[in-house]
Amino acid sequence: MSHNTFGRLFRVTTWGESHGPAIGCVVDGCPPGIALSEAEIQPWLDRRRPGTSRFVTQRREPDQVRILSGVYEGVTTGTPISLLIDNQDVRSKDYAGITDVFRPGHADWTYQAKYGVRDPRGGGRSSARETAARVAAGAVARKIIAGVRVRAAVVQVGPHAVDRARWDWAEVERNAVFCPDPESVPIWEAHLDAVRKAGSSSGAVVEVEALGVPPGWGAPVHAKLDAELAGALMSINAVKGVEIGAGFASALMSGAEDVDEMRAGQDGPVFLSNHNGGVLGGISTGQPLVARIAVKPTASVSTPLRTVDRDGKDAEIRTTGRHDPCVGLRAAPVAEAVTACVLADAFLQHRAQVG
Amino acid sequence: MSHNTFGRLFRVTTWGESHGPAIGCVVDGCPPGIALSEAEIQPWLDRRRPGTSRFVTQRREPDQVRILSGVYEGVTTGTPISLLIDNQDVRSKDYAGITDVFRPGHADWTYQAKYGVRDPRGGGRSSARETAARVAAGAVARKIIAGVRVRAAVVQVGPHAVDRARWDWAEVERNAVFCPDPESVPIWEAHLDAVRKAGSSSGAVVEVEALGVPPGWGAPVHAKLDAELAGALMSINAVKGVEIGAGFASALMSGAEDVDEMRAGQDGPVFLSNHNGGVLGGISTGQPLVARIAVKPTASVSTPLRTVDRDGKDAEIRTTGRHDPCVGLRAAPVAEAVTACVLADAFLQHRAQVG
Amino acid sequence: MSHNTFGRLFRVTTWGESHGPAIGCVVDGCPPGIALSEAEIQPWLDRRRPGTSRFVTQRREPDQVRILSGVYEGVTTGTPISLLIDNQDVRSKDYAGITDVFRPGHADWTYQAKYGVRDPRGGGRSSARETAARVAAGAVARKIIAGVRVRAAVVQVGPHAVDRARWDWAEVERNAVFCPDPESVPIWEAHLDAVRKAGSSSGAVVEVEALGVPPGWGAPVHAKLDAELAGALMSINAVKGVEIGAGFASALMSGAEDVDEMRAGQDGPVFLSNHNGGVLGGISTGQPLVARIAVKPTASVSTPLRTVDRDGKDAEIRTTGRHDPCVGLRAAPVAEAVTACVLADAFLQHRAQVG
Amino acid sequence: MSHNTFGRLFRVTTWGESHGPAIGCVVDGCPPGIALSEAEIQPWLDRRRPGTSRFVTQRREPDQVRILSGVYEGVTTGTPISLLIDNQDVRSKDYAGITDVFRPGHADWTYQAKYGVRDPRGGGRSSARETAARVAAGAVARKIIAGVRVRAAVVQVGPHAVDRARWDWAEVERNAVFCPDPESVPIWEAHLDAVRKAGSSSGAVVEVEALGVPPGWGAPVHAKLDAELAGALMSINAVKGVEIGAGFASALMSGAEDVDEMRAGQDGPVFLSNHNGGVLGGISTGQPLVARIAVKPTASVSTPLRTVDRDGKDAEIRTTGRHDPCVGLRAAPVAEAVTACVLADAFLQHRAQVG
Repeated sequence: MSHNTFGRLFRVTTWGESHGPAIGCVVDGCPPGIALSEAEIQPWLDRRRPGTSRFVTQRREPDQVRILSGVYEGVTTGTPISLLIDNQDVRSKDYAGITDVFRPGHADWTYQAKYGVRDPRGGGRSSARETAARVAAGAVARKIIAGVRVRAAVVQVGPHAVDRARWDWAEVERNAVFCPDPESVPIWEAHLDAVRKAGSSSGAVVEVEALGVPPGWGAPVHAKLDAELAGALMSINAVKGVEIGAGFASALMSGAEDVDEMRAGQDGPVFLSNHNGGVLGGISTGQPLVARIAVKPTASVSTPLRTVDRDGKDAEIRTTGRHDPCVGLRAAPVAEAVTACVLADAFLQHRAQVG
Repeated sequence: MSHNTFGRLFRVTTWGESHGPAIGCVVDGCPPGIALSEAEIQPWLDRRRPGTSRFVTQRREPDQVRILSGVYEGVTTGTPISLLIDNQDVRSKDYAGITDVFRPGHADWTYQAKYGVRDPRGGGRSSARETAARVAAGAVARKIIAGVRVRAAVVQVGPHAVDRARWDWAEVERNAVFCPDPESVPIWEAHLDAVRKAGSSSGAVVEVEALGVPPGWGAPVHAKLDAELAGALMSINAVKGVEIGAGFASALMSGAEDVDEMRAGQDGPVFLSNHNGGVLGGISTGQPLVARIAVKPTASVSTPLRTVDRDGKDAEIRTTGRHDPCVGLRAAPVAEAVTACVLADAFLQHRAQVG
Repeated sequence: MSHNTFGRLFRVTTWGESHGPAIGCVVDGCPPGIALSEAEIQPWLDRRRPGTSRFVTQRREPDQVRILSGVYEGVTTGTPISLLIDNQDVRSKDYAGITDVFRPGHADWTYQAKYGVRDPRGGGRSSARETAARVAAGAVARKIIAGVRVRAAVVQVGPHAVDRARWDWAEVERNAVFCPDPESVPIWEAHLDAVRKAGSSSGAVVEVEALGVPPGWGAPVHAKLDAELAGALMSINAVKGVEIGAGFASALMSGAEDVDEMRAGQDGPVFLSNHNGGVLGGISTGQPLVARIAVKPTASVSTPLRTVDRDGKDAEIRTTGRHDPCVGLRAAPVAEAVTACVLADAFLQHRAQVG
Repeated sequence: MSHNTFGRLFRVTTWGESHGPAIGCVVDGCPPGIALSEAEIQPWLDRRRPGTSRFVTQRREPDQVRILSGVYEGVTTGTPISLLIDNQDVRSKDYAGITDVFRPGHADWTYQAKYGVRDPRGGGRSSARETAARVAAGAVARKIIAGVRVRAAVVQVGPHAVDRARWDWAEVERNAVFCPDPESVPIWEAHLDAVRKAGSSSGAVVEVEALGVPPGWGAPVHAKLDAELAGALMSINAVKGVEIGAGFASALMSGAEDVDEMRAGQDGPVFLSNHNGGVLGGISTGQPLVARIAVKPTASVSTPLRTVDRDGKDAEIRTTGRHDPCVGLRAAPVAEAVTACVLADAFLQHRAQVG
C-alpha cells in the first residue's frame, strides 16, 4: 500500500518524483473565502529552494508554483486546490551509476525490495524534493490558522548546539543556516565547509514552535496533537527522532520538577514553565507548541561505501550528484510547513466537534 | 473531534474511562482463520496489570478480558473482535478533590478547556488505564504477524541508564522493572523506593524492538513505517519523545559514520550496522526495528503544587489516589502492543498493494 | 478486509454476531455537552425490536442498551460512547441444519467463500441483528442534529403501494407495519398473513425523510450527501435499491419538468417542487431530504430450495428458525437511524470546513 | 468539509473546475509493476469526450491525458500516479449570465449557500467535466483488475427502454448512444433530436455490469461491495437512483421467487438466477455484478425557468451554453470507470485481509 495523503480534514496528497516532469499536491478541505495567490505561496518555497547557498544542493530549481484549481478570483472556493511545480534542472545522468547499485543509507534498496521496481533518478519518490509540495501545502495551511505563527530554527549542526541565551528569531532570516544564534553561524559555516570539502555530511537538530495555538486543539487518543505532530515530522526525509517540550530530558526529571504549574491569569491559567511543550493529554494548553527533530546526515558522501548491486553482489559506491551537505538546514522550512498542516487539521477537527 | 481509532487496515477503536463500568476495544480488519482465545490475550494484560509490585499503582484490577465477537470455535472469523475488560477496583472518592481543581501536568485542564465538561474520576479518558485496551489489541496483532517478535525493555530510570554490555532479554521477565541489565535492577529499585517515599516520581526511557520484520513493510509518504510508529508511540500517555535507531545521536554523526553499509548475504544484503533502526525511506530493511521513547515522570506527586481551580482562581493541590511512581515501567508492555499494532497494519497494507 | 466503521467525523463502529453474547457499537466523534441517557436510546431500539407483532421474527429480545463510556453525569464528554446490548433469546439449535448447507439468498456461501470460516449461528455477522447497534447509534446522532426530524414509513409491501393522498405520519406509529396510509394497513396485514402462512416472505419499499436539514450540508465529490446516504442505506441488510427524490422516475421526465424552480422567500429561495429530494450537486437545499429503499423479501422461506453443501454437492434446504416474513418493515427504523448518522456526520463535516 | 478522494486502498483524488486551466487526479495505492501508458488511458477518455456527436455537448476538448508521476519506463512504481488533462475549449462568456442568477436544478445555489463563494464558470467544480478525471482513474483501475471486464450500456432514454431480447454488447460500440439494442437506436435518436430542438433534455437509465469478479470481494458492514458501489455511482453528476440486481423489482417478489438457487458446479456453485446482482451480504458471489443508475435530465434547458438571483429576488433564466441533451449517455463510460475503481479497491482490500 502506498499512502501519500496527510490529514483528516485538511488533507494534502503529494505526488511526483525527483526527476519526473513535475511534482505537486492536492489540498482538500480548505475552508472557502480565504484570499490565496501564487505570490503568497512562493516565498515559503523560496526558503527551502535548492541552489541558494553553498550549504545546500546546487541543483537550480525556480520552484515556481502554479494554482490549477480551487481558487476563483483570488479566493479559495472550498474545492480542492491543485498545486503544481515543474521540475527543471534535471540531470539524471548524474544518477546513471545508481541504477544498478544501491546507495546505502538511502531508500534505494528498500524501494526495490518492496516494489520490485523503482525510479532511480535522483531517488525518485524518496527524494527530499517531495517536501517542496509539502511546503506549498503548508503555505495554504498557514492561511487557515492565520492567528498562529509557526517558525523553525536549526538548533544544532553536528556537535555544535546554539547558546539559547543568545536566541534571536530575527537572526534566523539573516543567515543561510536558519540559525537563531549569531555566534553559532560562523562555527556552523566552518563546520559545513569542512564537511563539504571532505565529501562528507552533517546531521542537525531543528526546533519548531507554534505561537498562538489556542487551548483545546487535538484530542484523545489517536488524534493527540503531539502524536499527529510526531508522525508528521517523522515522515520528513532523514528525520530519526522527534521530541515535544522537554522531550528526552523529561526522563531525567522528577515529577515535581517536570510539572508545569499554573497561576490564575487574565485569559485562563498562566503556566510557570513549558516542559510539556504546549500539549497535555494530547490537547493544546495555549502555551507555545514546541517540538524538535533529529535529522541524520545526508547519506550521499564521496567516501567509498560498501554496498550491494541489483544482482545481490558486493559493490562499492561513491555518491556523486548534487546533494545537501546538511539536509537538516532545509528541514527547517519543511518542519514549519508540516507543523502548519497538522495545526490546520487540528483546528478543523476541533471546530467540527466542539463548534 | 475525537478520534479513538488506530490504523488503516488493522483498526483498533478503544473506549472507556478509568472509573467507568468497563473499558475495551473493537479490533477490525483481523484476517480470518487465526486461532485466538482469551487465554492468549490475558498474559499480555497481566504484564501491564496494576497492583503487581510496589513500583506500580496499588489499584488492584484483575483485568480479565472477554471476547464478545469475531471469534467462533476458537478461530477469528474476519469480523470485528470486541474485547471488554471490567473496571473493578474503582475508588472514585480518592479523586473527589480533583473535580474542582486541575492537577497540573495532567490533562484535567486541557480536557475542560476543549470540551467544557469532563469525567474527572481517575482522569477519565486521559487515564493510562486506556492502554489496557491497547495491550489487548496488541495481543491480537501479534497473532497476525506471527513471525515477528516484539519486545521492550526499560533502558533508563531517572538518571540511571542500563549498561548495554550486560543486556539480557531474559532478565526483563525476571524483575518488576522490565530491566535487561541485572546490575541496574537494585539501583533502579533503590531510586524508585526513594522517589515513592518522597511522594515524587521518576521519568524513564523504554526501548522497543521488533525482530523478523521482512523488508518492504511501510510506504511513502504518510504511511512511512517510522512515521506511523512515531505517531503511535507518542500517543501513549506521558510519552514526550520518540527516536528510531540512532535517533538524536545521528545528528552528531558524519554521513560516513551514520550510513549502514551492506554486504552480500544469503537472503539479500547483510547490514553492517543499524543506525537507521531497521527503516530506510519509511520502508523496513529486514534488520531489527528499534525505537526508544521518553516517558515523563508521573505528574501525580504529593508535593503541594500551584494550580488553578474551575473558577480560574489560584489553588494548591497535593495529589493523593494510587499512582505509578514511574509510569515508564508499564509503558514497556504498552509500547510493545502499540508496535505490534503498527506492524500488523503495515503487513496488511503491504499485502494489499504488493500481494 | 473488514470495515465495520461508518462515518468520517461522527463514526460508528458496530460489532457482534446474532448468537454471540452481545452486540454493540462505539460512537466516536460525538460533540460534548449533549444530554444523553439509556432512556433516550431505548425507545428507538424498541421500535425495531423483534417479537413485537406477528409480522416480525418471534425471537424475543429485550434489547436493553447500556452506556459503558463517554457519558458522565448524564452528559456526553466528547469521548467515545460504547453501547452494549446483550443477546438473550439465542436458540442456536434452530440453525444446526445450516452449518453444513448454505442458505441461498443469504450470505452463508459468500462469507464462507471469502473467509474460509464463518459463524453460522443465526447468520452470524450477516444477520440483521447488527442493525440494532445502528439504531442505538442513530439515537445518539439524532441528539446531535436536534433541529432535524428524521422519520420513515413503509410505502409498499409486495405489490401493494400506499395511496399518497391518504398519507398521515401519525398513522405510522399506530400500526405494526409502519404504514402511513390507514387503508393500506388491513391490505398489508392480509398479504403478510398469507405470506407467513405460506412459509414465504414479501419485499417492501421504505421511504425516509429528514425535515429541517439546513442548506449547505454535504460536499463535492465523494462526500456528496446523496452519495453518502446511498452508500449507508445500501449497507442495510436486504436493501437492493436506493433512490433520492424522484429517483428512477426522473429518467422519464424532461428537463423542464424535473427541475425544481425557485421563488424568492423569507429565508432564502422557496422551491416549487422537490424532485431532487433535497439535494443538488451533493449539497442539501433546505428542502426535505427524501430517499426510498427497495428491500428484498427475506430469503428464509419454508419452500424447499435448491442449494449446495460445504462439500460443494447439491442439497436442498427448507429454512426453519424465526424470521421476519417481511424484513422491510423493520428496515424503517433502521433507515431512520442510518439517515440520522449520515446527517450528523454531514453536519460535523460542514461545521469543520465552513464554521 | 470537502472530500474529493474516493477509495480506501485504491484512492483517487480528483481536482479541477470546468473552466480552470486543467483538471486531473492523483491515483494512489496502485500496485507496482503494471504496464501503463497514456495510450492505454486515452481511449477511455475518448469514449466520454464531448463534441463527438450531436447528442452530447458541443464543447470540443481533446481531453489529452498526461502522466506526471508514478510510472517509470512504462511500468507503475507503486507511488502516486498524477494524471492531468488540460481544459482548452473554455468559453466562459457563455456563462456570464449565470454569475448572478442561480440555475435551478444545478448546484449553483447550494454551492453558494454552503461556501458563500463559487466559481460559476461552467458550473465550476460541480460540472460533469470532473468525471473525465474519474474516467482516467478508471483506466488505471481496469489494469489492476485485469481479469474483470466492466462494461455499461444505456438501457432507457426518456420513456424508451431497450428490448432485452435484442441485447447485443457489440452494438454499444457501434452507435453514439451506448445502446445495446439496434432497434432502439433510431427511436432514441429521434427522441433526442426532438428534445434537443425543443431546447429540452431527457433522462436515462444506465446499466453497468462487471464480469469475472471472483467470489469474496466486499465485506461487512460498511465496505459492502454493493454499498460502496451505490455510494460511488450516486456520486456521479445527475444520478438520482441506484439499484443492484433486481433492485426495486425485488420488492414485488416473494422470497421463493427472488432467491438465487444454487447447483453444484465445477468451480463452486452455479447460480440459477441473478436477482441479487452478484452480491450477497455485501460480498461478491462470482456471478456478474449488475447495477443500474437513473440519470435525471440535464437541468440546462432553453425554456425560461423561474429562479432567484444573488440578492434573493425573483428572476428568470434560459440556459444557454453548450450542454448535453441527455447527460445519461456520457454517464455510461463514467459508470464503468467508477465501477472499476470500486472493484480495484475491493480487490486490494480483500487481498489485504485474506491474502
